[in-house]
Amino acid sequence: MNMRSGPSHKDPGDIIIALERAALERWGQGDPSGFLEICAPDVVYFDPHLEMRLDGREALSEYYEKLRGMVSIERFELLNPLVQFVGEGAVLSFNYVSYGKYEDAHRWNCTEVYRRMDDRWEIIQTHWSFTLAERA
Amino acid sequence: MNMRSGPSHKDPGDIIIALERAALERWGQGDPSGFLEICAPDVVYFDPHLEMRLDGREALSEYYEKLRGMVSIERFELLNPLVQFVGEGAVLSFNYVSYGKYEDAHRWNCTEVYRRMDDRWEIIQTHWSFTLAERA
Repeated sequence: MNMRSGPSHKDPGDIIIALERAALERWGQGDPSGFLEICAPDVVYFDPHLEMRLDGREALSEYYEKLRGMVSIERFELLNPLVQFVGEGAVLSFNYVSYGKYEDAHRWNCTEVYRRMDDRWEIIQTHWSFTLAERA
Repeated sequence: MNMRSGPSHKDPGDIIIALERAALERWGQGDPSGFLEICAPDVVYFDPHLEMRLDGREALSEYYEKLRGMVSIERFELLNPLVQFVGEGAVLSFNYVSYGKYEDAHRWNCTEVYRRMDDRWEIIQTHWSFTLAERA
């Protein structure tokens, strides 16, 4: 169910999408800390470059630090974001397209599960994958 | 957090993993109904063959019916399943390896978000992707 109801800053769906967008803005400038700062200690993580799920913020931080300064995205589109609420959790899913300066568009599928902790939201699960992928 | 504590049939983590395993058994015999029967009406779905997220059980059912009878998996491994509970939700993530009769192993990343509805659990989000993928 999509609980988004308008542009109010109090709308939880808008808050979550804004958190994601802000982290993606920093990511696109080579800064992984935007995501790391909103990840829970028990976050689990998938992306298409890994052989297995990564478990925990410490492991994700080690992985992301190797990418610091390596990513440069000119602009991106966060397509059709949907937030499903379930108890203190919120499941954000969207398609994502990034554009580099000289590269073709890169298309992704993304699911982020957020958990409310008091007055903030933390990511407990991230799954990035290529839209229309082939086995490596 | 992994709330699994033992082989008790009452353990919610074990219940969810057993639901997933049963649906995968049927999937491997060409029967998509195992998944469709435990999907919520508002389920959202990603896999690497789709150009966009699929929204809703009706759209997923239409997609899966085209695959009925087409899948034949000899055996599979559900690796390192983890269940994170958040309110009435449960986030199951795992790596998955399927073996066909004549094919190489196929390796996947999977995230399933379940939501408790009274005394049963329904899937509200599915994300399948290839482990170690390339853009198509």
